[in-house]
Amino acid sequence: MKLKIKRLNLVAGKPVCMIHEETAQKMSLHVANRVSIKSKSRRKIISVVDTAKGILKPDEIAVSEEIFEVLGLNDKEIVDVKIADGPRSIEFIKKKLNGNTLDKNEIREIIFDISNNALTEVEVAFFVSAVYKCDMNLDETKYLIEAMVESGNIMRLKGLVVDKHCIGGVAGNRTTPIVVSICAAAGLTMPKTSSRAITSAAGTADTIETIAKVDLSINEIKKVIRKTNACFVWGGALGLAPVDDKIIKIEKIANIDSTAQLLASILSKKISVGSKYILIDIPCGKSAKVSIKDATKLKDKFLKLGEKFHLKIEVLLTDGSEPIGNGIGPALEINDVIKVLRREDPPYDLEEKSLILAGKILEMSGKAEKNKGIEMARKILESNKAFMKFEQIINVQEGCVKMQEPAKFSYSIHADRKGKIKHIDNFFINKIARHAGCPEDKQAGVYLHKKKSDVLIRGDKILTIYASTKEKLEYAKRSYKQNKKKMIEYW
Amino acid sequence: MKLKIKRLNLVAGKPVCMIHEETAQKMSLHVANRVSIKSKSRRKIISVVDTAKGILKPDEIAVSEEIFEVLGLNDKEIVDVKIADGPRSIEFIKKKLNGNTLDKNEIREIIFDISNNALTEVEVAFFVSAVYKCDMNLDETKYLIEAMVESGNIMRLKGLVVDKHCIGGVAGNRTTPIVVSICAAAGLTMPKTSSRAITSAAGTADTIETIAKVDLSINEIKKVIRKTNACFVWGGALGLAPVDDKIIKIEKIANIDSTAQLLASILSKKISVGSKYILIDIPCGKSAKVSIKDATKLKDKFLKLGEKFHLKIEVLLTDGSEPIGNGIGPALEINDVIKVLRREDPPYDLEEKSLILAGKILEMSGKAEKNKGIEMARKILESNKAFMKFEQIINVQEGCVKMQEPAKFSYSIHADRKGKIKHIDNFFINKIARHAGCPEDKQAGVYLHKKKSDVLIRGDKILTIYASTKEKLEYAKRSYKQNKKKMIEYW
Repeated sequence: MKLKIKRLNLVAGKPVCMIHEETAQKMSLHVANRVSIKSKSRRKIISVVDTAKGILKPDEIAVSEEIFEVLGLNDKEIVDVKIADGPRSIEFIKKKLNGNTLDKNEIREIIFDISNNALTEVEVAFFVSAVYKCDMNLDETKYLIEAMVESGNIMRLKGLVVDKHCIGGVAGNRTTPIVVSICAAAGLTMPKTSSRAITSAAGTADTIETIAKVDLSINEIKKVIRKTNACFVWGGALGLAPVDDKIIKIEKIANIDSTAQLLASILSKKISVGSKYILIDIPCGKSAKVSIKDATKLKDKFLKLGEKFHLKIEVLLTDGSEPIGNGIGPALEINDVIKVLRREDPPYDLEEKSLILAGKILEMSGKAEKNKGIEMARKILESNKAFMKFEQIINVQEGCVKMQEPAKFSYSIHADRKGKIKHIDNFFINKIARHAGCPEDKQAGVYLHKKKSDVLIRGDKILTIYASTKEKLEYAKRSYKQNKKKMIEYW
Repeated sequence: MKLKIKRLNLVAGKPVCMIHEETAQKMSLHVANRVSIKSKSRRKIISVVDTAKGILKPDEIAVSEEIFEVLGLNDKEIVDVKIADGPRSIEFIKKKLNGNTLDKNEIREIIFDISNNALTEVEVAFFVSAVYKCDMNLDETKYLIEAMVESGNIMRLKGLVVDKHCIGGVAGNRTTPIVVSICAAAGLTMPKTSSRAITSAAGTADTIETIAKVDLSINEIKKVIRKTNACFVWGGALGLAPVDDKIIKIEKIANIDSTAQLLASILSKKISVGSKYILIDIPCGKSAKVSIKDATKLKDKFLKLGEKFHLKIEVLLTDGSEPIGNGIGPALEINDVIKVLRREDPPYDLEEKSLILAGKILEMSGKAEKNKGIEMARKILESNKAFMKFEQIINVQEGCVKMQEPAKFSYSIHADRKGKIKHIDNFFINKIARHAGCPEDKQAGVYLHKKKSDVLIRGDKILTIYASTKEKLEYAKRSYKQNKKKMIEYW
């Protein structure tokens, strides 16, 4: 059908067009959701199509700037519009949905099409469902990772490139800045990219951002690493396996997460930055994201994938049943990190866990002998070398190491009689911190004065909530009160 | 966040808004895909949000006409925009995706939200995947049907209301006009709504449309039925269980079809028009949509659902391995129907199958005694009463019964030596007819001069392809040639 171009002046991030409802019906567009548009210059594009009225006439097709440019169109140019089939990868998605195994080329084609916006979000949702329900075997997962890496930018770095990743879910668990500082001080290269908080109160990127810039370009990162051996950056805009972000965006809609996708998400980013020694931290247990049983299965898959990719991967199952450190929220967490690095009243659990992780990486990479890693890590920390390395990285990332003031409104919970802290639930604490304004409000959060098994006497401070507005403080207080019974056992 | 309204002049059929990329990032909109918009007049709407640039500035929110109206907005009004949670039904979809059984209220809420566009197409895709992978038990299917019926229009008709439905897939199988004419002539009320072709060469609506109007309103249908006892109309725009169309649209994207959705799709439409006696025709066997094994299971479910709804449902498993009748394509199929009704050289198989189906309905409804239905149907056909009823309905639907000329370009395939027709594959014949232009081009199609087991001598006409352009004729010829070996066995 011949239709007249109506330029939409819309940059949508992908080719998008709209056809009048009546025209769509004439073209039997109810059975398709894509059209091919051919310009006078005989260039052609396949685009997802929406129907609308008001904005355009029946003989018009409204197109986003992306289409306008690709086709080299003129305003009001007449184009030839036809129903187009979806890409072949839809068949492969259906094949997976029916429980079949996909081969390398099929997976590559799906990932390539997601990457190029050739598959719509609805089709990606079918892919996500298929992988969630039917899982992927190790070979499929390997192909998935390879295709994801191929879809994005790749960094090549000199030296012994090491990395760590934590599955997350534990409130306050901000080991990364400490581990990276220790490892970089030991001479290892650690191009650490982190995420921002999605469902928790703070991500490592949010936390570092309280004192330094984290949204660096790949070239800026390379400069930081050349100077310091390491970096703390936000991975979101680097184009490392970017197709992963598109898939995660769809997963989040139904709040599901398949094992294959989890493995691919983590390893594709690590492989993209050239890491050769990777330590995975899986916090498990009560109120953690992962049960011990699932963590054991996950560990096995990580190790097998490590073999397939000729990477040295080690996996630690750590205790994730309680928050780690005292601060929850970006500013309060960076304070905990600085306390550990500066040796000033450091939260014991955060320090110990960081030393275990750093020690393991030192051993894996050959910097320390077997079973001597923690000792070496402790020396680096106690000698102030880790703090100096941290300060150096933060300075190169245009920042300054400084303890942060929490938000101005605060409310402390006190024990009203004798008792004991029974259990501090990660979900519960994250929720209070989020209601107080985290992670958008970096000064907001929760400070835990007491931890599990601590004995309480009347008047003891249990925790303090910080928020930038009275409303948020009230909101956070309410969510504390609703769940406090689980936390404290009074005598 | 406070944003300025930019009116989009877009009627999208649902609330849609766009926010500038930068603003979306500030609002952490990467984790959500919905916002709540509150107007000065304190009215509020939840809308799906897209990010864009070009069309709007960072401090603007572009909204479709639907939002503009609901909120009673003024141009450039400042509104309050916040991230909004998705509806609760997303949790129920996830529950199903995890293999759990849903209760009545959960299913109602999902269907209600699909119906009101509160769930996005991506979320519907998760629902479709969940039902496809995890199936629904009979109670769930019943709730699904009830919710679908509730979501749409309902017709109340007097008399013994009967209906038939064919699962489809058999080329040329146009029994409906004949069965309806016989049953209506016998005094039964038969409010027959049909679909247009989706993957086949012609649907009943496309076929009737060659000689009468099929897109009637509910009021027009009621008038036709009052005058004639029956109708042949397109069900697509009547708003009968309209949520079904939304679900099917998403199913088609991945080309999947769950049993529960199939059952719900058929029965919701029948219940919406008040049918009490329903005959289901499941063509099965080689080259049919359904295997005999699956057909048997499907039959069992239909019967059990019939009991749950206190409806009299019967199911016939018919031979669907070969095309029925000679014409394939709307015009060629209406010709077959007219030949049967007028008793002029009728295709034997089409006539026999129509009599079996009509006979069964006459028995189910009590018009005929047990085992006397076919005899009664044959009498009605042979007495010309069925033809007179057909003509009456067509006339009331502003049409005229007249044999149709096929498309002007044609090409006949002849036997080049002695042989026999081995098997005529439904998919193969449908494909040739579609390549010739069906169903959009109603005069296009295929005419089968020979059927299965017919003996051929050199020069015998096997089939004729009709198309409106030489290009389409060539295209159809090519698809014949690629597959002809399966069809003919030469001696």
